[in-house]
Amino acid sequence: MNNRMTGKLITLEGIDGAGKSTQLNWIVTLLQRAGIQAVVTREPGGTPFGEQLRTLLLDQSSVMHAETEALLMFAARREHLDKVILPSLAQGQWVVSDRFSDASYAYQGGGRGLSQHKLNVLEEWTLGTLQPDLTLYFDVPVALAQQRVGQGRNIDRFEKEQSDFFQRVRTAYLERAQAFPQRIKRIDGSQSMVEVRIEVERVIRGLLQDG
Amino acid sequence: MNNRMTGKLITLEGIDGAGKSTQLNWIVTLLQRAGIQAVVTREPGGTPFGEQLRTLLLDQSSVMHAETEALLMFAARREHLDKVILPSLAQGQWVVSDRFSDASYAYQGGGRGLSQHKLNVLEEWTLGTLQPDLTLYFDVPVALAQQRVGQGRNIDRFEKEQSDFFQRVRTAYLERAQAFPQRIKRIDGSQSMVEVRIEVERVIRGLLQDG
Repeated sequence: MNNRMTGKLITLEGIDGAGKSTQLNWIVTLLQRAGIQAVVTREPGGTPFGEQLRTLLLDQSSVMHAETEALLMFAARREHLDKVILPSLAQGQWVVSDRFSDASYAYQGGGRGLSQHKLNVLEEWTLGTLQPDLTLYFDVPVALAQQRVGQGRNIDRFEKEQSDFFQRVRTAYLERAQAFPQRIKRIDGSQSMVEVRIEVERVIRGLLQDG
Repeated sequence: MNNRMTGKLITLEGIDGAGKSTQLNWIVTLLQRAGIQAVVTREPGGTPFGEQLRTLLLDQSSVMHAETEALLMFAARREHLDKVILPSLAQGQWVVSDRFSDASYAYQGGGRGLSQHKLNVLEEWTLGTLQPDLTLYFDVPVALAQQRVGQGRNIDRFEKEQSDFFQRVRTAYLERAQAFPQRIKRIDGSQSMVEVRIEVERVIRGLLQDG
């Protein structure tokens, strides 16, 4: 991040059922204990306009080309940046986002098959050099995630994909974590919730100590 | 266009009030007389999903960053390409589109101030090397266009812009026409409708003879 800013951007990544939402609340609590009031947001969405795009993107009846999907995700991200992330960071606030750019590499890259190169071009077009200060990637086997998500609730356009789609998403996430070990911390989400909380706390403490 | 295809892509450009819609019907008639049944389409839109994006893009209450707008325009364009333009051309059909990429250079470039470079990157990302076979740019002074559009009807998010916005759009269109004289034919839309029809016919005949 830009040195003028004192706020930090933390992103959470992982497939549904990896435990992101539960741990997001825990991260907010940990930051509060350190006297930091974080702005909590999510992608796709995070702005009124982004939420409209989210509805289009997640609607089961939407049919679109993988490149259309990527352009829409980055359109929502550009808006999110402009209306939420950059103004918050500029005011010295911390931002915790449930998913960010790594998700595009995982879902539109790994899942839908878009090349890294194409995603790099869109990412640079949209974000310039902005990257999260810290990304927690919650890694779980696909079968476990699907078991956790359960059968009962209404599923969206991504959740209706088959296991092999999520395997590719997971593989892409693991590759991102390996490529950016300083920024992306892989957390074993298959552990018990208490174990995951302890690991998350360790990572967040590390960030707070780094300053 | 790709040599394998026998269909051609014709695009119409210009600010509202330049007479595009009237001349679009005339072009379709001219093609019909030559035994060509053209697919008529428009941007943003042209697909069910693209029309949903069109609604978002034109809604007066939508507030978005200029780069968000550009990403959305190209998202709708990517879908338009995938669902309408490429399949039609592949079947040897001709396509006539009310606006295409040049409009992004005019509106998001000239109007909103995005750089040529940024638009070039998005255009190449979305279209590769695809360009229209012929573009008719209907050029009219802004004051005349606004007089024609009139006061009565409901205006959208673009139409509510002030004269200087449309001056910049027109300037950008003129620059495109100058940069690509082979492809883009400027038509003086301030002439009488009969004169414009004659000029359009001359241009379309030229294309039919070349092809």
